Amino acid sequence: MTSSKNGYPASQDKGILIVLSGPSGVGKGTVCSALRECSGTDLIYSVSATTRSPRQGEVDGVNYFFKTREQFQHLIENDEMLEWAEYVGNYYGTPRKFVENTLNSGKDVILEIEVQGALQVKQKFPEGVFIFLLPPSLDELENRITGRGTESEDVIRSRMSVAIDEIKLMEHYDYALVNDRVDYACSRIQAILTAEHCRKDKVYSKIKQWLER
Amino acid sequence: MTSSKNGYPASQDKGILIVLSGPSGVGKGTVCSALRECSGTDLIYSVSATTRSPRQGEVDGVNYFFKTREQFQHLIENDEMLEWAEYVGNYYGTPRKFVENTLNSGKDVILEIEVQGALQVKQKFPEGVFIFLLPPSLDELENRITGRGTESEDVIRSRMSVAIDEIKLMEHYDYALVNDRVDYACSRIQAILTAEHCRKDKVYSKIKQWLER
Repeated sequence: MTSSKNGYPASQDKGILIVLSGPSGVGKGTVCSALRECSGTDLIYSVSATTRSPRQGEVDGVNYFFKTREQFQHLIENDEMLEWAEYVGNYYGTPRKFVENTLNSGKDVILEIEVQGALQVKQKFPEGVFIFLLPPSLDELENRITGRGTESEDVIRSRMSVAIDEIKLMEHYDYALVNDRVDYACSRIQAILTAEHCRKDKVYSKIKQWLER
Repeated sequence: MTSSKNGYPASQDKGILIVLSGPSGVGKGTVCSALRECSGTDLIYSVSATTRSPRQGEVDGVNYFFKTREQFQHLIENDEMLEWAEYVGNYYGTPRKFVENTLNSGKDVILEIEVQGALQVKQKFPEGVFIFLLPPSLDELENRITGRGTESEDVIRSRMSVAIDEIKLMEHYDYALVNDRVDYACSRIQAILTAEHCRKDKVYSKIKQWLER
């Protein structure tokens, strides 16, 4: 495959925001890491902002954008966060500017995120491509959730119930695919990215001057 | 890539109709033949109906469905043709039944067709996926048109004018891609097919019973 996904110079192309989500336990993080390692992909991972302190070795602008509480609140107020949430006293979120600058440079961006966060992004950035990752079966999801530790039956039942509620939200997504094997899931995501670059409207902007002569 | 394009058993999947079109000279036929030879594709070529007589070696139901004029007119009247046209005293067209039966068996169908015919198909079968093939540039299209023979300048100018009118109709298509190299064009079409099988609505029908428990 050439570096351009629709056959015209990639430099003329605005990037696409892929939002990868799905129920917890489905393996979003693993698929996202595997995509990063695929050769030939020009896929940039969205860098989150947070108010928590940097851990040893973490670099500002690479692992996170580290912000003070005041800075983060200012970003929220100025509609500069595509989504955000508070966990254990710290803010986490996706800065709009990093995503938009990267897309404008012609690179695709991938954002791996929980289901609720993805729906926030959709409201603020509906032109994104929303992909929902599914397990091969509910039994397999239960295996993956159970496999994480030695949880009690109650905890597992409660997590499965949350997962099913999350799966119900897939109706808000554009695409859904199964994480049956990580390499298959990656191939499908790359196919979606290629297809989205071949959408008529994206290509039309490149050839419209032909029609004016 | 597994035989299933979204990760659930392909047997449960209804096929997709791909309509491949584009201006004359762009190389639709070459791309279509190359797709047929790609291993791993389960792509069935739509068989046309015609009232012309079979040539030696042509098999009914393989090369064409051979029909009498009366049979063909009956098919038109019963809305059983997705598109049709008359050339040099004979009817040619795409029978709906062959397309629908093949899709219902879970196989994807590809129909390679002129721009005007594709627009007829879109009216009758809007759930098809309409792909427009473009040349890398207008100069290259002119090279391809000129390369076919020793046409006069007037003929070439007139063909280019028709081609530009055809390109204007790409706004009615879902996707557009460049036939810069046949293997690249084939990869893009296969990516579109994979992506379309991952559309949320196609996958939702397979997992909706999960949500009822």
